[in-house]
Amino acid sequence: MAVAGRNFQPPKGMRDFYPQDMAVRRYLEGVWRRTAINHGFEEVEGPTFENIELYTHKSGPGIVSEIFGVFSGKDEAELAQLKALGRAPFALRPEFTPTLARMIAARADSLPKPIKWFAIPTMFRAERPQRGRLREHVQWNVDCVGEQSSQADAEVIAAAISALEALGLQSIDITIKLNHRELVAGGIRSSGVSDDNIEQAMALLDKRAKLPEAAFLAQCSALPFDFERFAASMVNRIDAINSAQRLREKERSASQSIEGMEPLPALIESLASLDALRWCAFDYSVVRGLAYYTGTVFEIHEATGADRAIAGGGRYDNLIESFDGPSLPACGFGMGDVVLSLVLHDKGLLPEDVYMNPLRPHAFVIAADDDAAAKLPGLVAQLRRAGFHVRHSYKSTRNVGKLLSEAGRCRALTAIILGKDLHENKVDFKDLESGEQRAIALDEIEATLRMSIDRGR
Amino acid sequence: MAVAGRNFQPPKGMRDFYPQDMAVRRYLEGVWRRTAINHGFEEVEGPTFENIELYTHKSGPGIVSEIFGVFSGKDEAELAQLKALGRAPFALRPEFTPTLARMIAARADSLPKPIKWFAIPTMFRAERPQRGRLREHVQWNVDCVGEQSSQADAEVIAAAISALEALGLQSIDITIKLNHRELVAGGIRSSGVSDDNIEQAMALLDKRAKLPEAAFLAQCSALPFDFERFAASMVNRIDAINSAQRLREKERSASQSIEGMEPLPALIESLASLDALRWCAFDYSVVRGLAYYTGTVFEIHEATGADRAIAGGGRYDNLIESFDGPSLPACGFGMGDVVLSLVLHDKGLLPEDVYMNPLRPHAFVIAADDDAAAKLPGLVAQLRRAGFHVRHSYKSTRNVGKLLSEAGRCRALTAIILGKDLHENKVDFKDLESGEQRAIALDEIEATLRMSIDRGR
Repeated sequence: MAVAGRNFQPPKGMRDFYPQDMAVRRYLEGVWRRTAINHGFEEVEGPTFENIELYTHKSGPGIVSEIFGVFSGKDEAELAQLKALGRAPFALRPEFTPTLARMIAARADSLPKPIKWFAIPTMFRAERPQRGRLREHVQWNVDCVGEQSSQADAEVIAAAISALEALGLQSIDITIKLNHRELVAGGIRSSGVSDDNIEQAMALLDKRAKLPEAAFLAQCSALPFDFERFAASMVNRIDAINSAQRLREKERSASQSIEGMEPLPALIESLASLDALRWCAFDYSVVRGLAYYTGTVFEIHEATGADRAIAGGGRYDNLIESFDGPSLPACGFGMGDVVLSLVLHDKGLLPEDVYMNPLRPHAFVIAADDDAAAKLPGLVAQLRRAGFHVRHSYKSTRNVGKLLSEAGRCRALTAIILGKDLHENKVDFKDLESGEQRAIALDEIEATLRMSIDRGR
Repeated sequence: MAVAGRNFQPPKGMRDFYPQDMAVRRYLEGVWRRTAINHGFEEVEGPTFENIELYTHKSGPGIVSEIFGVFSGKDEAELAQLKALGRAPFALRPEFTPTLARMIAARADSLPKPIKWFAIPTMFRAERPQRGRLREHVQWNVDCVGEQSSQADAEVIAAAISALEALGLQSIDITIKLNHRELVAGGIRSSGVSDDNIEQAMALLDKRAKLPEAAFLAQCSALPFDFERFAASMVNRIDAINSAQRLREKERSASQSIEGMEPLPALIESLASLDALRWCAFDYSVVRGLAYYTGTVFEIHEATGADRAIAGGGRYDNLIESFDGPSLPACGFGMGDVVLSLVLHDKGLLPEDVYMNPLRPHAFVIAADDDAAAKLPGLVAQLRRAGFHVRHSYKSTRNVGKLLSEAGRCRALTAIILGKDLHENKVDFKDLESGEQRAIALDEIEATLRMSIDRGR
């Protein structure tokens, strides 16, 4: 009975995770967590909302319109400010990096370096929802702070690759598009922009995707910044690097002779040493965040370019200091669940088995008569306490066939049938994969179950 | 360099989880998840914020002052409403049950019954933080919907007990205080309140903890509701039940003769069949939520009563229908991480081993010379790809003693030392628990590591 004016839908762009949706989410999160731990990263978390200054400090006041404001209904001062200015004191986090920078700045002296952290927070964007972009999503953040060498850049990229591999993706499915701030700066300089204006040209490139083409070109002319000349120059540079990458050892000297390419051979070498290079290609179109990143920038895309970026990241050596911490080099990336799920789904890499198998019941306990039914709850409780995933029917039927069907529907691995042999302390144990059934003693159930599960692994 | 006016602290009552804090949180969440799955519950999640009507619908307009409002910085209509009325369209979830009710109502027809769900969401309360109560916390929600019998009440309570047991708590450490709406209604009736006023008396009991004693008693007199007579009557009732509980079989007929005790023998029987009864005691002081719950109500407390409730729950048979779903009986509980952590910590049940052991590196790889150092990244990458948790030093030292100390500090299980035997494809493998060290072939590393880890389990 729906009543007008009630809104019992989830807010636009937010998701309900029913059991199957949640199994997929936990599967992704599990791969992310296991991969990060194996790569030596430690997990952290922060508050779901932060003081709004944390975001305006990093991104400027413009960020306020793109985030969700949060305020306490109990705080009169906050409510007054809200009514007067439309400003909230807090914001739902649109990204994790400011929280990470704040946490590291607060304990920079006592944390052993490099600080290798990962997090799997939920993030929020006050944007119109569209394919690959929701208002709430889960994002895997992987960061290495305190290590200057390109080994750190390569390590975070290698962690991303390991996770994608664990999810079934191969290098042919994925392109990691690499760019480097110095490389772009060299391209801008060679297109005739004076040193004083390089930062502005970089910021303009950063905005390119958000501006209409004509507006972007008009702003280029105003600087002036000859975008076409820049683009042509970048194509040449990238060609030189990509061939240097192919002929790694031989061509290193050649790549070093091009302006802005000095840091690249070491990065290429580090990526190769982790077997990550074959996933990567230099690509000057990756400019988002160049005003923020201080070195390597990268985006991970599905190889045909069908969707938004699966992940994005780079080196941000100035951030920790800007949050009142010491000067610490840093690099990292964020990988969201939304685009990644679309890519995996489109490639058939999310079959039900993959995410449902860890959730299959070890045993489904069946009572074949009323005496058995009285004993069932105790046995179920005992097996659960011993660490088994055990289910039973809530129906009153004693029809073993029907109950076995129910066991099959919930994908139980085995069935334990309590029947008239129970007074001899015996039950029927049925392997639902092989169909094999045999009588076992009551006190053998746990051992039999454990063996049966181990064999099935 | 701190700058005045910047606020780089986490908001009041919100937590930063550094790696050790996060390890504790993941340990608790892991026990909750494993327990719920073993008990046949399936995991769900919902949006972090919901339309504010979802909460006012369940709890009335008063809830608005106790929750965090959320609004989009991009939506002009929302901002206008905010400035005019101080009202936000969304609220950070203060509890999970309205989301659960909304999700079940939306798909009630297609979901097999009973619907056994759990969730581990973060929740928010716009209150002053205090011991055991923060503005953001994590809460384990366990619910069984669609099963009328007291077996469902007992099953959710048994799941709570299993988790507490898995965390090292015993029945002597914990009291599950049980109450029942019918029992309280009987007590109210026997204290002279007319049938028409029973609901109001119940609502008054609900508010008791929030009111000053004098105000509470004044409101009782106004009804009129003789609280002292009620309390005396309840003491007698509870005594009767608790002795019936001790002498379960014999006294069942006695307990059935007291008004409001009709549903209790079946509940007691169900709890006993799951070996849960020995954790429970009837206690009429558990009244919170009696205006909302429709049957069993319970709170889980540390036995000495030192802290707030570890968990609270009960039966809420009317909720799904009130969210425009079908009439479905339901029961469940919520268990937060804050009080639980305090209790575990106070009892010494959170030693570092418990939550750090699953995070120990399987191997720490050491390069004893420069040739070995060149080979190290490739070996590390290979072992990580094979699923091992592998670390290495970022220091340039080749001093094996120092590097072994570093391996020990990060609590690695083994060390793999690459040295001058590497040209013969051999490495030194050191078990850091036993101290045993031996040379093994490069291609034996994975098998040796796997055996060593299995042995250590």
